[in-house]
Amino acid sequence: MSDNKLITPRKVQGFWELMPNEQMVFSSLLNKIEDVFQKNCFVPLDTPILEYSDALLAKSGGETDKQVFRFSKGENDLCMRYDLTVPLARFVAMHKGELNFPFKRYQIGKVFRGERPQKGRYREFYQCDADIIGNGELSLVADAECINLLKKCFEAIDLDVTIKISNRKILSGFIQSINKESLSHEILTVLDKMDKIKIEDALAQLSELGLNEKDCKNLVKLSKISGKIEEITENLKILCQNELFMTGVSELIEVSKYLKSFGLNNEVYDMSIIRGHDYYTGTVFEVFDKENSIALGGGGRFDNLCSYFSKDKMPGVGMSVGITRLFDLMKDKLTKGEHEIDVAIINFDETLNEALSVCSELRNQGIKADVLYENKTFKSKMKEANRRNIKYCLIIGEDEVAQKEYTLKDMQSGEQNKLNLQAIVKKLKNE
Amino acid sequence: MSDNKLITPRKVQGFWELMPNEQMVFSSLLNKIEDVFQKNCFVPLDTPILEYSDALLAKSGGETDKQVFRFSKGENDLCMRYDLTVPLARFVAMHKGELNFPFKRYQIGKVFRGERPQKGRYREFYQCDADIIGNGELSLVADAECINLLKKCFEAIDLDVTIKISNRKILSGFIQSINKESLSHEILTVLDKMDKIKIEDALAQLSELGLNEKDCKNLVKLSKISGKIEEITENLKILCQNELFMTGVSELIEVSKYLKSFGLNNEVYDMSIIRGHDYYTGTVFEVFDKENSIALGGGGRFDNLCSYFSKDKMPGVGMSVGITRLFDLMKDKLTKGEHEIDVAIINFDETLNEALSVCSELRNQGIKADVLYENKTFKSKMKEANRRNIKYCLIIGEDEVAQKEYTLKDMQSGEQNKLNLQAIVKKLKNE
Repeated sequence: MSDNKLITPRKVQGFWELMPNEQMVFSSLLNKIEDVFQKNCFVPLDTPILEYSDALLAKSGGETDKQVFRFSKGENDLCMRYDLTVPLARFVAMHKGELNFPFKRYQIGKVFRGERPQKGRYREFYQCDADIIGNGELSLVADAECINLLKKCFEAIDLDVTIKISNRKILSGFIQSINKESLSHEILTVLDKMDKIKIEDALAQLSELGLNEKDCKNLVKLSKISGKIEEITENLKILCQNELFMTGVSELIEVSKYLKSFGLNNEVYDMSIIRGHDYYTGTVFEVFDKENSIALGGGGRFDNLCSYFSKDKMPGVGMSVGITRLFDLMKDKLTKGEHEIDVAIINFDETLNEALSVCSELRNQGIKADVLYENKTFKSKMKEANRRNIKYCLIIGEDEVAQKEYTLKDMQSGEQNKLNLQAIVKKLKNE
Repeated sequence: MSDNKLITPRKVQGFWELMPNEQMVFSSLLNKIEDVFQKNCFVPLDTPILEYSDALLAKSGGETDKQVFRFSKGENDLCMRYDLTVPLARFVAMHKGELNFPFKRYQIGKVFRGERPQKGRYREFYQCDADIIGNGELSLVADAECINLLKKCFEAIDLDVTIKISNRKILSGFIQSINKESLSHEILTVLDKMDKIKIEDALAQLSELGLNEKDCKNLVKLSKISGKIEEITENLKILCQNELFMTGVSELIEVSKYLKSFGLNNEVYDMSIIRGHDYYTGTVFEVFDKENSIALGGGGRFDNLCSYFSKDKMPGVGMSVGITRLFDLMKDKLTKGEHEIDVAIINFDETLNEALSVCSELRNQGIKADVLYENKTFKSKMKEANRRNIKYCLIIGEDEVAQKEYTLKDMQSGEQNKLNLQAIVKKLKNE
């Protein structure tokens, strides 16, 4: 092929692709979280990347949405999935008769958004979801399960987090009690940014919506209520006696009891937690990294998963780990501990076969051993091991082969010892 | 939402989607193989699902191929990847300066083919590849590494397989020696189906291509050579002395030595192994299930991975596990051993919180415990546990709570015992 036919290799902008050392860390992060899901009796689901557009865009009545990758193939109008929830709804609606309820499933997979690429915004990225779907009804135990699951995920990766919990019925009930349901969306939008704006500005914005001074103040007061469940209950009950509001409070108390049984003891009940999605109808929760207060996931209760596909009521509660943000936060810390290779085997021309044999035995013991067969000289092999920050080298010369003892060199301290294979395995496994 | 607006939930035909109990098995199969890749010092790569069409279709000069999902988004002409090799080439060409060579990477991911759906043909399916890419040159040790890796994958899942190995230079050299290089593709096509057609038919088809009787006979004879390396070498050398042919034979011998060092001892050298792909240029191999002789993977050496992207020569050798076919073969055997739940906790209304607490402690010990909180009565809970084939039930009534001993019931034998938590953990972990 002549030079002028060469194609410049490019990755599509905004699409997820890590270098191998980062990918190792990301994969191990996913594995740890998946392990937690499985231990908590959630089963895996792996739906197709492509769905029929009418199903995927049911919410918007099937209208084209600029935010999705949509195209035709033959007679089919197809979309790349933009989340994992709509495919779950499609799956549950299709297979209702074959599933065990409550259906506890997790899915970790890529989703796609056709938006303009910009910093911090991916067009292809991972979502990491676990949901519990009920058939007809679903106990509030499920809400506690999802909150507990989220906590366990972060325990598994040793990250200190705070979980904040509320119930959407509390704010909705309050708004109902002041007869402003028609402004519900606008009021929640103001309250949702309370942590970013001043109280005076929040009051002004609520007032602009036509709320009287007392209601504005009480709404702000309500959204500032935060603490342990026994600390906040009385403060809540003073503010409002609306039925929906009181249902929200008692659901919150019930969930808190289940959480206590699950062993949680430091969750915070915080009325400022709203969660953007319109479909949350009860419990809502969000998780924050303790050191930087970065939101790393959350979830909540929704009334009906399958409303676009079925007349049957399928209530659910779900949680999601913000896996790309979590990875960005933790990659430096985690990348340090990962090694592509535990020990590099350094052979001479005449000991290549012996080196391969030792390599194979070490791998059988679970040690990541590799022979640097591409480097030609001893010097270039050692240099390569140094450049790649490999911690140990195992030198196999003819003397070593004859004695069945090999030279293990610690590349940081420079210390080296002649050891038999058993002793080498023992030393490397203790690392 | 009114009924007439409901959308019928459908999955796109030919797209991969398993039921949860099957998906559990498939996930654990992938995890086992991934573990083998990592232990053999291959690093993970996870390239985007979408690539620029010019890069992905470089082979065909960027022409539309009906076999791919291709579409435009804004100014971009995009394709869903149809394999994992072209994305690897694109990645290596982009990041050559940052990678360690030989670059040993694995990727397990979905690929897409726009063909008409039919039985046994997926339009979305998994590929499971591992490749070693050299910078300029690459030792034959890499070929042995890939064959060894394939063997290890099947060891990890306890499946008895036969690996058959050849070298494309042997057949190519023979064809060169009889001056029929212009018919190379046609000759290989006949030989590739030798196991399906009669020898007379193969001879007739070769003769139709214009080969004389002796050459036809020798070609068939050559492709029938099979056995241990020391058994076949002499038979090969008698047939032809062409330089390319002899290079092939000596490469085969060299690879066999490395394989011996890696501990392989039952691989078969079989000259009928050709592998469809045009780009294999040296070592080729294929793996077959011993019981049914079903091909479950293979691979080979190729001259230059990045020829469409770069002037630099990047030789490589790779292997691929036929993961969907493997899953179809093994799912019945494997599904039997998998359980969504190890133990179902059966509580009464007044012991729900205690049940959740016991559940949490069991899960902390790695036991998949679940509380059947959706079923209302004791009877319906036990019925549900039976229906789902859950092996153990743990009954937690008020007496049990008071005594801190719970009733563990073996659902198959009917045997039941009152045990404390420690004894329960011990018993369930020994299962």
